[in-house]
Amino acid sequence: MTEPAIQRWAVQLEYDGRGLVGWQRQKSGLSVQALLEDAAFRLAGGRPVPSITAGRTDSGVHALAQVAHLDFPADAHFSSYSVREGLSYHLKPHAVVVLDAAPVSLDWSARFSATWRSYRYRILNRRTRPALAEGHVWHVKSPLDEHIMQQAANLLLGQHDFTSFRAVACQANSPIRTLDRLDITREGDEVVVFAKARSFLHHQVRNMVGTLKKVGTGAWEPDRVATALAARDRSAAGPTAPPDGLYLTGVGYDPDPFA
Amino acid sequence: MTEPAIQRWAVQLEYDGRGLVGWQRQKSGLSVQALLEDAAFRLAGGRPVPSITAGRTDSGVHALAQVAHLDFPADAHFSSYSVREGLSYHLKPHAVVVLDAAPVSLDWSARFSATWRSYRYRILNRRTRPALAEGHVWHVKSPLDEHIMQQAANLLLGQHDFTSFRAVACQANSPIRTLDRLDITREGDEVVVFAKARSFLHHQVRNMVGTLKKVGTGAWEPDRVATALAARDRSAAGPTAPPDGLYLTGVGYDPDPFA
Repeated sequence: MTEPAIQRWAVQLEYDGRGLVGWQRQKSGLSVQALLEDAAFRLAGGRPVPSITAGRTDSGVHALAQVAHLDFPADAHFSSYSVREGLSYHLKPHAVVVLDAAPVSLDWSARFSATWRSYRYRILNRRTRPALAEGHVWHVKSPLDEHIMQQAANLLLGQHDFTSFRAVACQANSPIRTLDRLDITREGDEVVVFAKARSFLHHQVRNMVGTLKKVGTGAWEPDRVATALAARDRSAAGPTAPPDGLYLTGVGYDPDPFA
Repeated sequence: MTEPAIQRWAVQLEYDGRGLVGWQRQKSGLSVQALLEDAAFRLAGGRPVPSITAGRTDSGVHALAQVAHLDFPADAHFSSYSVREGLSYHLKPHAVVVLDAAPVSLDWSARFSATWRSYRYRILNRRTRPALAEGHVWHVKSPLDEHIMQQAANLLLGQHDFTSFRAVACQANSPIRTLDRLDITREGDEVVVFAKARSFLHHQVRNMVGTLKKVGTGAWEPDRVATALAARDRSAAGPTAPPDGLYLTGVGYDPDPFA
């Protein structure tokens, strides 16, 4: 038996979405994928290292614990330490860092092995624009009632056809998803939406947040969210919330490669 | 009796210290004072509006709820709304905003009427550099023991001669201060120091944090903090922690003009 030609590494990433075009490599600007693969290319001594991610975040969206896998040449013989520190070094000065790295088998995929994804959405709910959190929150001036938002959020829990909350450009085969958690909490001036599911449709979290904001300000009755869901029509739900407030907070695997 | 020529307004400010030279007006760059007084100058129709602040924060230090007062010409006839929104408008695009404004009497001073100040200091305690909180935390790679830091912090509570924790350039008449709270807490990768006192000496919080970090990494025994305090010698305490992690979180008044 010969050694496999590839050594696959799972990496956990934190990044600031400001100034980035999102995960996916694009000609229009800096992407997390291009920055990560370029850093891996240098770490691998000038050989290409392709990546697959758990969540293709959009332009301006942040990550606290994104997961991707990288296929390094097998003769590289890295340690977790050298992958983490080496990639983080080559990622400088960009606002992308590798928090952890673990060797995984070739049948493990950052995308297909994931059993859940979680997101946090931060809304700064006050009159004055943000000074410290500019680009890191959605600034909503009208007072939001987080209790009534939670009532509406509960209508979205469970398995549904989420066509009304899916970007028109979404490429998923099925609009059916199972939403496990959608929690609304307030800490002072900040209203936070926490969402968890096996997977999400394109723009699903931002479309749910944009809709819940309508309910929170009193513009919509909570029941209208059930009507929007049943319509299976994007135009029946609320607008897409901006990317600034969205954070990919975690991706789950069983077993966890980083444990 | 004639109307006073001045109408004094208390304002509460949030700002991001990155890219600013601190509170005090300086030729070397943008200061909060210059930005605020320039905005007030425009709001007052081109007449000078001097300011006094509760805490002259250093370059790179942030504020969640700084307080200052502004002396407007009395014929301006502002409302709280027009002062807050007008100043915030003229402060654009800088990372300085006015959260609240209240009329105060001429014997009220943002500086001398303050009964306490509170600060938070954020330490990111992990191997990898910050991606999302760059400029907003002190990055300390060595593991910190927050319990042993709290033990050492307790030795600084109460009334002491804080000469060892005072900047050499500090202009206060007396080095005696009463430290009411110095709490060390951990939330995941972040160690947070909360400090509260009637007033602080120049660099006192940053010098206490730099010293507690020595204890937290195990480089210093907790008792060495008592020895450093007793020495009344700046060189006996630890180094000055960087400004990045420091936030002025509140200033107290009795009664509270913003209540």
